[in-house]
Amino acid sequence: MKVDRLVALAGGVGGAKLVDGLNRVLPPEALTVIVNTGDDFTHLGLYICPDLDTVCYTLAGIANPATGWGRAEESWHALETVVSLGGPGWFRLGDRDLGLHLERTRRLATGERLSQVTQSFCRALGIQACVLPMSDEAIPTQVDTDEGLLPFQEYFVLRQCQPRVKGFVFENHACARPAPGVLTALEAAHVVVICPSNPWVSIDPILAVPGVRAGLAGKPVVAVSPIIAGQAVKGPAAKMFAELGVQPSALAVAQHYQPWLRGFVLDRQDKAQTAEIRRLGLEVLVTDTLMTSLADRERLAREILDFVTTW
Amino acid sequence: MKVDRLVALAGGVGGAKLVDGLNRVLPPEALTVIVNTGDDFTHLGLYICPDLDTVCYTLAGIANPATGWGRAEESWHALETVVSLGGPGWFRLGDRDLGLHLERTRRLATGERLSQVTQSFCRALGIQACVLPMSDEAIPTQVDTDEGLLPFQEYFVLRQCQPRVKGFVFENHACARPAPGVLTALEAAHVVVICPSNPWVSIDPILAVPGVRAGLAGKPVVAVSPIIAGQAVKGPAAKMFAELGVQPSALAVAQHYQPWLRGFVLDRQDKAQTAEIRRLGLEVLVTDTLMTSLADRERLAREILDFVTTW
Repeated sequence: MKVDRLVALAGGVGGAKLVDGLNRVLPPEALTVIVNTGDDFTHLGLYICPDLDTVCYTLAGIANPATGWGRAEESWHALETVVSLGGPGWFRLGDRDLGLHLERTRRLATGERLSQVTQSFCRALGIQACVLPMSDEAIPTQVDTDEGLLPFQEYFVLRQCQPRVKGFVFENHACARPAPGVLTALEAAHVVVICPSNPWVSIDPILAVPGVRAGLAGKPVVAVSPIIAGQAVKGPAAKMFAELGVQPSALAVAQHYQPWLRGFVLDRQDKAQTAEIRRLGLEVLVTDTLMTSLADRERLAREILDFVTTW
Repeated sequence: MKVDRLVALAGGVGGAKLVDGLNRVLPPEALTVIVNTGDDFTHLGLYICPDLDTVCYTLAGIANPATGWGRAEESWHALETVVSLGGPGWFRLGDRDLGLHLERTRRLATGERLSQVTQSFCRALGIQACVLPMSDEAIPTQVDTDEGLLPFQEYFVLRQCQPRVKGFVFENHACARPAPGVLTALEAAHVVVICPSNPWVSIDPILAVPGVRAGLAGKPVVAVSPIIAGQAVKGPAAKMFAELGVQPSALAVAQHYQPWLRGFVLDRQDKAQTAEIRRLGLEVLVTDTLMTSLADRERLAREILDFVTTW
């Protein structure tokens, strides 16, 4: 199978790394990334899109390598001032990052759509890949917990994922439309890669956008496990699986996505689960999935492309 | 006359300097400053109060001594990012300054009033004087020019005061109320000082707030000329006088405020105008009014207090 049109579904840090790898090894303009916007929120009057920004900063080579989010060589003077005046400091916003949120918020207020703003920012940041928000409409993720429904960022950042999870609500998703370009990109795609992002709060929100699941039907879809040796590389994915009564594992991820998948990529450390994942009817690639260097990103991307090319 | 309750009316840079001098020489809690908010505006979604901030930064000792506006030791990363993404850079906003605007905008959106936010910020900045916006309601100054009405900041910053001035509109002023504290401070004041700010666009907007003129009636009011040797120390005051058909001079300023004044302070360079200003029925103090150092601010403040104490 030829792969010169690829769609990646991605959330934040882990997803952004694989997207970067794919962008580095694919021909120019071959890659479209559909990014989760379920954790977008308004804070300090600014419209903030954490996953979209992590993907763009990573593709532009300006992401903070230490945190995985925000920008490298960042200063924090504005937020320090906010806090010194008694304002909220729980959501960390660097000065350069803030500049992007200010300009995005300004443009949205003039009536531009999130997808248009994102395209313009990508051009300014020198990004060749096509980066699409899953929707131009807000589909805010609410985490249903033992303390009730919490807006995602409140659960994730303010409460540091401590409340016990019972489920998720993707508010407004049934009435929302995918952003322009999402369905046509899926239709044109030779293969779809579900990046190693949180299945519950990064990928499921994308799958919940009307038309996306139908767009995956019949496509060669391959998912990369964000769970290695029972742990999430970053974030609360493993904790969420456990609290929802599922032993966190690569197998559990494969089962989660199974209706849409043709292939699955898992880490060498989870090799023992290969047979069971094959039994789900999936083709399996076992490799090193942890991406600590740029070289790792490229290698994993190449291996995935080689894997799907044999189909 | 005893002076331990003083009200100063002030705009930006020049006014802020004299306010700082008064604050340094008066007993604690003796000073209330009523600040012009006619040039407040919303930019990048932020509610910005240039004169209020200049007064507060100056009183807190964190103003930028080079520009007169904004903060010392400032960085510009957010605005650089806005501009790099194609956004507007004409209104200069430093990162620390931005933090204050973000927090003010956030609080106003929760329903706090500008005067409450200002009081809270003053506490956080360690400011003892009572700083009041002239009103909690927007009274935007429009500059009537040969190109039509221009919002003040557009005239002042974007167009650098180039359009020819025909007059001024203080939008909404007739229906607005003074901020809580303004009228009681005027009532309790032993003396009112009109600071060396622009008469047309810094002081007149304050005088246009219903109740303020009546509050000045019968009070010992002293004004300090912002015009020295026919020039404004900073800003377009002289240009405005000229375009409105009045030769810019200390005398012209005295005539402008004459109905409310008991005394007038002018610079030694304009000494020759003393007799004519006396002929308006005003007591006159001739001294050095240019404030280049902290010592200048204190000295001028002391001289003004000595001047009015003899009344």
